[in-house]
Amino acid sequence: METTNGDGFGVGWYPVDGPGEPALLRGVGPAWSDANLREVAAATSSPLFLAHIRASTGTAVQQTNCHPFRHENWLWVHNGSIRDFGRLKRDLVLAIDPDLYPSLAGSTDSEVMFHLALTYGLRDRPIVAVERMAGLVESVARAHGVPHPLQMTVATTDGDRIWAFRYSSEGHSRSLFYSTALSALHELYPDDKRLRGLSDETRLVVSEPLGELEGAWQPVPEASWGVIQKGEDELGHFEPAMP
Amino acid sequence: METTNGDGFGVGWYPVDGPGEPALLRGVGPAWSDANLREVAAATSSPLFLAHIRASTGTAVQQTNCHPFRHENWLWVHNGSIRDFGRLKRDLVLAIDPDLYPSLAGSTDSEVMFHLALTYGLRDRPIVAVERMAGLVESVARAHGVPHPLQMTVATTDGDRIWAFRYSSEGHSRSLFYSTALSALHELYPDDKRLRGLSDETRLVVSEPLGELEGAWQPVPEASWGVIQKGEDELGHFEPAMP
Amino acid sequence: METTNGDGFGVGWYPVDGPGEPALLRGVGPAWSDANLREVAAATSSPLFLAHIRASTGTAVQQTNCHPFRHENWLWVHNGSIRDFGRLKRDLVLAIDPDLYPSLAGSTDSEVMFHLALTYGLRDRPIVAVERMAGLVESVARAHGVPHPLQMTVATTDGDRIWAFRYSSEGHSRSLFYSTALSALHELYPDDKRLRGLSDETRLVVSEPLGELEGAWQPVPEASWGVIQKGEDELGHFEPAMP
Amino acid sequence: METTNGDGFGVGWYPVDGPGEPALLRGVGPAWSDANLREVAAATSSPLFLAHIRASTGTAVQQTNCHPFRHENWLWVHNGSIRDFGRLKRDLVLAIDPDLYPSLAGSTDSEVMFHLALTYGLRDRPIVAVERMAGLVESVARAHGVPHPLQMTVATTDGDRIWAFRYSSEGHSRSLFYSTALSALHELYPDDKRLRGLSDETRLVVSEPLGELEGAWQPVPEASWGVIQKGEDELGHFEPAMP
Repeated sequence: METTNGDGFGVGWYPVDGPGEPALLRGVGPAWSDANLREVAAATSSPLFLAHIRASTGTAVQQTNCHPFRHENWLWVHNGSIRDFGRLKRDLVLAIDPDLYPSLAGSTDSEVMFHLALTYGLRDRPIVAVERMAGLVESVARAHGVPHPLQMTVATTDGDRIWAFRYSSEGHSRSLFYSTALSALHELYPDDKRLRGLSDETRLVVSEPLGELEGAWQPVPEASWGVIQKGEDELGHFEPAMP
Repeated sequence: METTNGDGFGVGWYPVDGPGEPALLRGVGPAWSDANLREVAAATSSPLFLAHIRASTGTAVQQTNCHPFRHENWLWVHNGSIRDFGRLKRDLVLAIDPDLYPSLAGSTDSEVMFHLALTYGLRDRPIVAVERMAGLVESVARAHGVPHPLQMTVATTDGDRIWAFRYSSEGHSRSLFYSTALSALHELYPDDKRLRGLSDETRLVVSEPLGELEGAWQPVPEASWGVIQKGEDELGHFEPAMP
Repeated sequence: METTNGDGFGVGWYPVDGPGEPALLRGVGPAWSDANLREVAAATSSPLFLAHIRASTGTAVQQTNCHPFRHENWLWVHNGSIRDFGRLKRDLVLAIDPDLYPSLAGSTDSEVMFHLALTYGLRDRPIVAVERMAGLVESVARAHGVPHPLQMTVATTDGDRIWAFRYSSEGHSRSLFYSTALSALHELYPDDKRLRGLSDETRLVVSEPLGELEGAWQPVPEASWGVIQKGEDELGHFEPAMP
Repeated sequence: METTNGDGFGVGWYPVDGPGEPALLRGVGPAWSDANLREVAAATSSPLFLAHIRASTGTAVQQTNCHPFRHENWLWVHNGSIRDFGRLKRDLVLAIDPDLYPSLAGSTDSEVMFHLALTYGLRDRPIVAVERMAGLVESVARAHGVPHPLQMTVATTDGDRIWAFRYSSEGHSRSLFYSTALSALHELYPDDKRLRGLSDETRLVVSEPLGELEGAWQPVPEASWGVIQKGEDELGHFEPAMP
């Protein structure tokens, strides 16, 4: 039983010409009734975008709490939560690089996770940085006696590659899927019109499978990271590490 | 399978001291995350109120489309729709008393139904007026070749009595329930704390049963009207009539 | 003394590649604090756009009342009002082509004016159509004893040309300006960096002059229409006409 | 030249029967077009309320940034700003009692000032607590090389008394007025209907004078605190103090 994701939405997209800084469109109502989202989506082309629909786990429904979060050319979306975030928040925020502190604009665990990952080197070594962020969350939670604190699927991108993560402290994470290689799908469904014109570099990462196409979605294994990039994508084991 | 009622909400309530004009609180987001609703509800006492959560059937998500609709001391809420309302709307609006026309503020079928009922004498003979409104809708629909046009449960009040209606052109209406007489519930559940302090005049009308109390809810029969009032409540057969 | 235009905003823009249907971004808060407007504006290129900031003259602050209004490839913005609109509205709405009636989504005089102009042939002969719309408004107002009913500056476009209008029944209209020909500005200010890269076809139409550049703005005369188009623009006398 | 206060509003009010916790109504649009504000204001009686209209000095327009801020039975409104708040914020937030930290919901300087005052004993010795808050802000600013950091008029209440403060580091504070004693106004204007029925305990504190009644408003002197309470009100000199 999942809650309705009606507590705001967001989409961040990169321009067609080169990487550059992504644009954000975020709203506080349900995505399904947002006229601007439909308008801008229809009028926009982009080689890479992240989209998110939010179900608040307690923090306010406001634009600064809507994903994606952005820092320079980076975007971040998160599905999950930090248990007892209210109790852990101060210690987590204190671990954020003071130079990054002023760019915290909202009140969510997700934005804090992003800024911790930035603190730990997201821009240079994304996988290590996210593993350290997770390690810190688990360490702070342990100090406060909070069990199984982290539940997350995360996607982050610099406009060129996408890193996706699936992890939870209890080893029972929310689902995450990536789309089957287009070359394979083209072979399976040579006549499917929806697949026409999609290049072999097309890849989707989603929390739940979209549509009914048999074989279109591959589950990301428990405790994993993946990289979507030009050429061969990658998949590996995710392991929280002390920062 | 029902859609999520996340397209706005509203509550209208009457003052404790005498009838007077009701106040309205309406919002365009989901009721579940509206801070003002929680605040005002906690700070307000009222002997009679109508509340509504909206699932748009196509018209815009905006405050003027949120129920209850109000005219002087009257409130109106509606669950349902007029089929092909876009095609029928002009003829229906033309039938509204020109003096009432300027008070149409939104774009819903529900508000048009309310103003038609007002046109047909809601303030004097509510049941007849709503039967005439339904008759007009069916007549206009027939002229446009729209089958089974009306699907409605409606509640309307002058601050003193509440009239509730359950009707659909196809004879298969959305559900409507009223609460069992408090005297009977007090006998059934002499120890239930939630029922303490509720007078015998307490009555709820709801689209779907609330809570788990066995025997607490009575279905309003298909094609019926009911009146909640001081003393004996009433129930009767609803029959659309040409205005 | 002007009121603050903080009751919503909107921008409609055409795609870079060919005419096509314009996109709309509209919001109900002040433009000055709308994050999405800044984001989308920075991420979008367009050869032609209309923008509007709203000061409500009484109708609700909601997205369906925000300009521009759109019909197929046409956009419409209006600055002004119809006096005693509540009293005149029904007669004006009745004059709208019944096929266009269902596309009325809001409650403003401006949207009614647009649909009247569409009814009178905006898509074929824009100037005549707007003159007939004005004629109808004045005629309906006369029948209701409303003096000086129309106060308007209007801009409308099909994505290729822009028609602008300045008119009021009392002969004292709100201001309207168009930008001086770029060829002349380039001669006047050969070193102004803001003018570099602007082609001779660049033209702005505004309610009030923007910026401080001496000679940059030409007032549209009282009771006039103008056409911004490729090649020579045009200006003529505006005269309401009975439809 | 003041900016338009169109970036949200709020009102907090206490129940008629005894002190209790105040209710809040806050919105993100301009107060002048908020239908719920008009409705709830008309339907509510309260012996004591604080109201605020916001002009953002940079932080997001969202409900959690709207005044009044509330903690248990306390309310707080602020007009002014902390200069270079982004640079000072982390140090200021670190000085907040860790037990109070989780109740920070927004991102404004005003909310941080409130939580600092709570940290320094607002609930026990309000004047001392606010003087310490101001002292801390000036001390942290000095360490960061920020001159004249604090500009504030503040009102805070526990539901029984109201404390008002006027202070700025540069000795040139925003205006603050309190209403002349009703006994004096009744003598000056024995026939003024607006003053009838107002008891001698009626007192307003405002940023700018309301209305045109000569002699109705007294300026709060530079660097002052005042207490509105049953019986004699008080006024004194405000002096920041190191916490």
